[in-house]
Formats: sequence, C-alpha cells, structure tokens
Amino acid sequence: MVTTEKITCLLNWKATPYHLPLFLAQQLGYFADEGIKVAILEPSDPSDVTEIIGSGKVDLGLKAMIHTMAGKARGYDIKSIGTLLDEPFTGVIHLSHKSGITNDFQSLRGKRIGYVGEFGKIQLDELTRHFGMTPQDYQAIRVGMNVTDAIIRGDIDAGIGIENVQQVELEEWSVQQGRSRDDVQMLRIDELAELGCCCFCSILYIGNEEFIKNNPEKVRKYLRAIKRATDYMIENPADAYSKYVKIKPHLDTDLHRKIFQRSFRYFSRDLKNVQRDWNKVTAYCKRLNIVDAEFEQNQTNEFLTWPLLPESQPGVEPTTVETGVVEGGCTRCLHSSIAPPKIFA
Amino acid sequence: MVTTEKITCLLNWKATPYHLPLFLAQQLGYFADEGIKVAILEPSDPSDVTEIIGSGKVDLGLKAMIHTMAGKARGYDIKSIGTLLDEPFTGVIHLSHKSGITNDFQSLRGKRIGYVGEFGKIQLDELTRHFGMTPQDYQAIRVGMNVTDAIIRGDIDAGIGIENVQQVELEEWSVQQGRSRDDVQMLRIDELAELGCCCFCSILYIGNEEFIKNNPEKVRKYLRAIKRATDYMIENPADAYSKYVKIKPHLDTDLHRKIFQRSFRYFSRDLKNVQRDWNKVTAYCKRLNIVDAEFEQNQTNEFLTWPLLPESQPGVEPTTVETGVVEGGCTRCLHSSIAPPKIFA
Repeated sequence: MVTTEKITCLLNWKATPYHLPLFLAQQLGYFADEGIKVAILEPSDPSDVTEIIGSGKVDLGLKAMIHTMAGKARGYDIKSIGTLLDEPFTGVIHLSHKSGITNDFQSLRGKRIGYVGEFGKIQLDELTRHFGMTPQDYQAIRVGMNVTDAIIRGDIDAGIGIENVQQVELEEWSVQQGRSRDDVQMLRIDELAELGCCCFCSILYIGNEEFIKNNPEKVRKYLRAIKRATDYMIENPADAYSKYVKIKPHLDTDLHRKIFQRSFRYFSRDLKNVQRDWNKVTAYCKRLNIVDAEFEQNQTNEFLTWPLLPESQPGVEPTTVETGVVEGGCTRCLHSSIAPPKIFA
Repeated sequence: MVTTEKITCLLNWKATPYHLPLFLAQQLGYFADEGIKVAILEPSDPSDVTEIIGSGKVDLGLKAMIHTMAGKARGYDIKSIGTLLDEPFTGVIHLSHKSGITNDFQSLRGKRIGYVGEFGKIQLDELTRHFGMTPQDYQAIRVGMNVTDAIIRGDIDAGIGIENVQQVELEEWSVQQGRSRDDVQMLRIDELAELGCCCFCSILYIGNEEFIKNNPEKVRKYLRAIKRATDYMIENPADAYSKYVKIKPHLDTDLHRKIFQRSFRYFSRDLKNVQRDWNKVTAYCKRLNIVDAEFEQNQTNEFLTWPLLPESQPGVEPTTVETGVVEGGCTRCLHSSIAPPKIFA
C-alpha cells in the first residue's frame, strides 16, 4: 500500500473560533515551512476522538484534559504534547428566566441536563452524589455538539458547556430575544466540585503515543508551526481572525467573533502542559474513579522547543507582564487579567 | 496498542445536505442495528481524502468518480463500493451580470477561475486546450471549499461547482441582492468536454482496498445501513431533513433546505456503481492523462446486498416507475424527471 507523509490531526469539536492557531499554521504555510504536511479533520461525534487517536487510526488531535486522562486509563495510547486553551470555565449553563435553576445545586433536581459524551455524565453523577443526590434525581440527555440548540429548543433545561463558546452563543441569542445577557447563568463545575480551577477542561494537543515515539521530529515541527501561528494570532488578533474566516466562512459572523474574543484570554501563550493543572485533574479523575491510584500522567513538554514561561506559583498574585502574559497566580487568572482583543471594525 | 472496532469514514466535503443518508444511518441507529460502529469525519481540505483513505489511515469515505480513479492511478489503493449521488451537473459557475462570461468558452480568456483541488485545474487546462487556449489564457486560483464565497467577494470571476450546492448558494444570494436567480449561470463541463453526461462528478462511497478485502462483512453492513437510511429519506424527505438538522443545526436554514431539495433527484436509489458512467469517465480520464491505457476500474457492486435496478439503456427513453425511480434512459435523466420533495412547511 502506498503510504502518506500527511499527518492526520483530528479536532476535539467541529471547527470553532478557538481552533484558529491550527488552521492559521496551515493557511500561512507554517507547516510547509517546517517541511510537514498536515490534514486537519473534524469529528461528527466528539466522543470518537480519544478512541480513534488512541488506536492509531489518527496521528494527532485535540482533547480536553479530563478526556485525555480517561482515554489513557481505558487503554488508548494517547499523550498530551501541549496546551491550546488553559482552563476555560466549564459548567451547567441555563437560561435563568425559565430553567428554574439557581446557584444552589439542589435546584437541578428534576431537571433535564444535556451533556456531550459519557464523561459529562460521569461528572454530573459524581456531583449529584457530592450534593446528596442520585442520578435518578435528574434526567441526563446526551446531546453531542448541540448543547446550545437543545437549550434554545427547550429539549433540555440546562447543558454542560464552556464559558467561551456555549455561554456566548446563548448570551447572543438572549439579546436577540430581547432579554439580558445575564439571563444566561453557569453553575461552574470547578466550584461545585471544589477543584479550585477549571483545569479539567483545558484543551490539549494530543497524539497517539506510538506515532509520537516514532516521529519526534515531526511532532516538534508540528508544534513549532502552531506556536508560530499562536504568536501571530496574539500579536494580530483581528488580522488573524479575518484570515481564518476566509477558509471557514461560516465563522464570519458577529457571534463567532465574540466567541473568539472570549476565547482569547484562554489561549496558552507557550503551549505548555501545566503541572499544577495536571496534578489537580489527576486527583479529580481518581475521585471520579476514571483513573486508578497508580495512574501515570500521560503528558510531556519535551516537544516544545522554545523557552517556557515559569509555572504559576500558588499564593503568588498574578502579574501581567508586558506581553500580556500572566506570571504568578494560576493560569485561570488569565481570565480576569487579559483584555479581549479589538477585532470589530 | 488497543485497537478500535470503529470504522472511520471521511466525507468528501464538510457536512452538506446531501450527506444526509450517512448521518441518518448513524442517528437512527441503523449502523448499531447492523452491529457496527462508524465515526464520521469531515475534511478541512477535500484534496486530503483519497490520499488519507488510500494510505489506510482512514477506512471508508466519499469522493467524486474522477478523483476516485485519479487516486487509484497514483497508487492510492481506493475502490468505489457504491454511489451516493448520480451525476450532479458540474461546471464553471458565475454571476453573468458582472463576470463577462457567456456560453462561449472563449469568454473565459483573462478570467480568474476558482477550483477546489488539483484535478479541477487539470480539467480546466484540458478544456482550454480543447478550445484552443492555453493555461496562460486564464488565471486559475485554488479556493478549496470556498468557491461560493470567493465569487461573492469578487476574488474570482467564476468557479467550479455543482448544480445542487454552489449554484443554489449563489442563486439565493443573488435573490437577496435583488437580482434574479438566472443571473447565476453554469458552463457545464460535461457539455464542454462532450462527455454526454456529468458522470465524472458522481459522488461515490469509497474505501481503502485492504480494509475492504479484510472486512467484507463490515462493508456489507455499512452499506446496508446506508441503504436503509436512503430508503427512509426517499420516503420521508421532510422528516429526514428535520432529523438531520437536529445533529447539524447549521443546516437548519432555507438555503440548506433548497440545497437538499435540489440534491434529491441526484441521490442514487440503489447505490450501484453505474457501468456506463464508469466507462465514460474512464475514457475521459485517459483523455486527461490521469489514468493510463491499462487502467482497471476500481469499483464493485459486490457489497450491495439488495436487488439493483436495471442499468440504464442507451437510446431507451426514461420511464418514471411508481417509486419515482427512472428506468431506461441514463441516470442523468433523474434530473429532469423527479420532482423535488416538499420539505418546507
């Protein structure tokens, strides 16, 4: 059989504004400059991703931290080689004027709650236990990538989503309906679960372990091209976004620009796996019985060939350095300290 | 490494209304009923598809007939196992009020013409030769999946597209602009190339040959599930479309419904590879120097486990039988004889 030099890369989700660095690396020829070819693929079901990469059918891809660990614990040989988004806030999102849900977790009793794939359900079940409820106390509905539409249609009362995507979609829809953005509320899972950060949902660059082992130079080149595209985007957000919509015209809307703006502060500037976050999520996964006590973290920063920013220090107040990068504090502090880019005319 | 039972299936294009049968087979549990699991993936560059399937990185997928032959001729071990769309009209699409293009091929001189991937360019170059022009007489611009937007933006004067997608997109945009649908014109490649049919662009179910050889039962089950979904769609087009948009909300627009309507007559009812079309396209590919004189057609109907409709007979007038299926004539006659389904409320 004829082989191909093309590296396959499977996104965690349909193409979304926060995937910009990957597509930009392709579009600006950065992969080509490194001498590699990359075929970016999009899933129709996000739950396929770890299985398909882990079984070696696809080489590289993206996935949230908790799924990256869960997939490994199930025997899929995947490893994180970097970070795309640091700790986007994740939680149970709802329209407060009609959901009947409050800041009290107990208000979820009897509600229909949408989740993407099976680990959303595991997290919900653990949270309900944590708050003295059982899975029988609410109705879990698997909705795949369609959380927002299912809430709008009224198929579910609330759904698990992230602050920089589903929350923005619902906020903009609410405004169209003549309501306030504040009608959209999120019960943050990190707060409910007392994790201290939303690191379980950091979106990682992952790969098949055998592919990584056999192709270390390709992996370095791949990440170098993405780092270069990330730097370009951080420096020129408006220009980068207008380039992106040339290849993804369906993202050329105010809504998607707002999603990009909201995602901006979450982009990892140096792409590193954050040890503090891995430790927290490892502990959380043990609590959820997703991984066992001996779990070895499936992550490495060895393919990042540039100076990494200092790891955040617990107890140290965040300082916004000149580049807009936060040092000290924790990575989630990026959220409150980086201003969104001006990408509207 | 842990293996997966999931069959990977890579679309020829981002998810589009005419992909309905595949997604419906997933959504209605028809794949599950057959005891198989299918992960549907979408490309970001259609030119990746034959290479990735041919090299065995992905198991199954979709591709136009001409690319299926071209990929095989390049050494990618792909084979057609059925047909999704019979002969959608394909050609050079433009807005006549400003393109300066007429029904005369010579009017393409000096124009900027967009094409998807490299074979579009090969076809254009052959056509220009055929009409006494050279590739220097026009400017070819590779636009990937964004033909329509590139025309609207004015980046190109015309672009290669199909009647049931790009032509519909442009027609609806023209109406929005206060112009007539008739402003959108197509120079049909089959007519220009004197092929007698647009069969080169029939969209086929394809697969990696080694995967097919090693998994004949899976392939039969896969196609049986898709046939069942196709039957459902033919019988219940409105209901099928409303199911589809639940998993692909971005297709829940009037425009996409019109694309589905326009695609309806092209859907193969029995999914067979049409021998007449394969013979024509083989001859065309030889003319284009895409395949050599000894090329063996990489197609089979052996995995279609239901009665196939009679092959169309040259010179026999088409007859619309009770089921809405045309017998006799050629498959392209489907275009003129099947009424579009009523899927608008």
